[in-house]
Amino acid sequence: MPTTLKEFESVWPRLLEDLTEHCKAYKLPQQSLDWFRRQLQYNTVGGKCNRGMSVIDTSALLLNKELTEEEYFRSAALGWMIELLQAFFLVSDDIMDSSKTRRGAPCWYRVPEVKMIAINDAFMLEASIYVLLKKHFRQEKSYVDLIELFHEVTFQTELGQLCDLLTAPEDEVDLSNFSLEKFTFIVIFKTAYYSFYLPVALSLHFCGFATEKNLNTALDILIPMGEYFQAQDDYLDAFADPEVLGKIGTDIMDNKCSWLINQALKKVTPEQKKILEDNYGQKNSEREAKVKALYHELKLAEFYEQWEEERVADLRAKIDKVDESEGLKKEVFETFLKKIYKRSK
Amino acid sequence: MPTTLKEFESVWPRLLEDLTEHCKAYKLPQQSLDWFRRQLQYNTVGGKCNRGMSVIDTSALLLNKELTEEEYFRSAALGWMIELLQAFFLVSDDIMDSSKTRRGAPCWYRVPEVKMIAINDAFMLEASIYVLLKKHFRQEKSYVDLIELFHEVTFQTELGQLCDLLTAPEDEVDLSNFSLEKFTFIVIFKTAYYSFYLPVALSLHFCGFATEKNLNTALDILIPMGEYFQAQDDYLDAFADPEVLGKIGTDIMDNKCSWLINQALKKVTPEQKKILEDNYGQKNSEREAKVKALYHELKLAEFYEQWEEERVADLRAKIDKVDESEGLKKEVFETFLKKIYKRSK
Repeated sequence: MPTTLKEFESVWPRLLEDLTEHCKAYKLPQQSLDWFRRQLQYNTVGGKCNRGMSVIDTSALLLNKELTEEEYFRSAALGWMIELLQAFFLVSDDIMDSSKTRRGAPCWYRVPEVKMIAINDAFMLEASIYVLLKKHFRQEKSYVDLIELFHEVTFQTELGQLCDLLTAPEDEVDLSNFSLEKFTFIVIFKTAYYSFYLPVALSLHFCGFATEKNLNTALDILIPMGEYFQAQDDYLDAFADPEVLGKIGTDIMDNKCSWLINQALKKVTPEQKKILEDNYGQKNSEREAKVKALYHELKLAEFYEQWEEERVADLRAKIDKVDESEGLKKEVFETFLKKIYKRSK
Repeated sequence: MPTTLKEFESVWPRLLEDLTEHCKAYKLPQQSLDWFRRQLQYNTVGGKCNRGMSVIDTSALLLNKELTEEEYFRSAALGWMIELLQAFFLVSDDIMDSSKTRRGAPCWYRVPEVKMIAINDAFMLEASIYVLLKKHFRQEKSYVDLIELFHEVTFQTELGQLCDLLTAPEDEVDLSNFSLEKFTFIVIFKTAYYSFYLPVALSLHFCGFATEKNLNTALDILIPMGEYFQAQDDYLDAFADPEVLGKIGTDIMDNKCSWLINQALKKVTPEQKKILEDNYGQKNSEREAKVKALYHELKLAEFYEQWEEERVADLRAKIDKVDESEGLKKEVFETFLKKIYKRSK
């Protein structure tokens, strides 16, 4: 039985207390402590927590048993560290992208008394990972590996974000700057490492199965799975029913370096390219409609659907070949894939 | 012979190449690599590098010999990691404080094509520390201690910055929010740990003398020394000749939670307090002059000078009692103190 959001969230207060105690030991003035606790809560809790929960589910699969209370807590703690890492990225991305809302509430930096203090708050979300890691995992053989894993994935995600910011600035459209190569780099570094590889790698360390071979197998499957996931996300942004998707896609108006625009750029005639150049990345729904009309003309939805089948077949073939002799399990990857394939939101 | 800025800076290109190689291994697109190298150079190089250089000088003192080329490089690498940490703080502090210039050039976020990308750039300055630490110190016994030291000092500095931002927001004057306790917390956490304790602690690890006793002795002397340094900084901001100081002090207009205002608040009559409340933290030089007049009336300069003598006497007494049996040396602290005492800029 996969864990539930409710169970996962029930672990959070203990971690919040750990961080609080750490600050109290430093005699942090009360006003600052209240602020820190409030921003931890505001920015870390309230999402779907798919990444965090998958550490627990993966661990239960790998250990092939129901987790003890202690094992549940410790794998959940690792899961919450991913959620802290994501909170660190989201709080700062929202400032960089001038976003307005997040999870149905104002972005943290848009809360009137917060503003640019949000930058330091983002830092503290990141730093909290290492406070918790030290408190709960310092005695483990894997401690250094866990730290290095978080360091590496953090740096990778920052490289992905840098490339994204330089490739697709919201206010300056230059489609010649786009390419499938850059799209792939951005997706792998900005999303796939921390969303797909990190939970499984953490779980492998937690379960004592983090051999080089297992980690490489996880990478070899989960990075392409992250690429597929993001392409699908971009497809849904343009083609899904907003009612079902739960939001209105804005990738075209936001000048996003998406899978669709990059595929379109490979297929267009010079005349069609002109249409993209004139209409992509403009905050104007008539222009957006022209881009979408061209996407339809290029049959991008059908192309995506065919591409999806191929990628999923590739992934299944890879999963089928997984060597389980060092404790890894095909089922880990099957579970990930099942959650993604043909999702509509 | 203390090291020179020129010698210290000659190490930097090797570290820049290490970081470049690391990105190339990830196949970072060229445009992003160029950007990363440019921002590393812009934000990390060009300061006085007192913190970084003191790792080298402390190591030469502790080892009581001239450093070999290899030892020089490795202690300089640790020194540059402090400079990277400081660059991470300064790039982001400048955004949070809406600063205009830094080291005589526009703040990084004020460079037209940069803007909020500076936030991600700040993250990458921090992440670079751990890339370099892994490359050059992974094989050392002290590797985990070095990582944990950087983590702890980073978190401490962020706590200090949070308390400072909440205590002294630039646009909202509330002197009842100030106190010597908060001043002390801010100074210790925001400045003393990373500027005074960190270089010596790194050097102790580097030299193999990082016993608990030595680290505690370093803490016990360098934290009060950092407090003294900041009080002096605040004194100079108001009372030094701007020609000699090399800048015009703006603490009063910037609503800073400085040593002087906190001492003033302890000495004022209710009538004088009203003057402070009406005139502190205003971008208006007539009001600033009224605060300064009151500082003179309260004889704060004389009070500071007497306080300084007492603090320096305390520090000298502590230094005199340093137990050198585990490899620590009084001279380390004497050298630090000599650079600070009676400085005029």
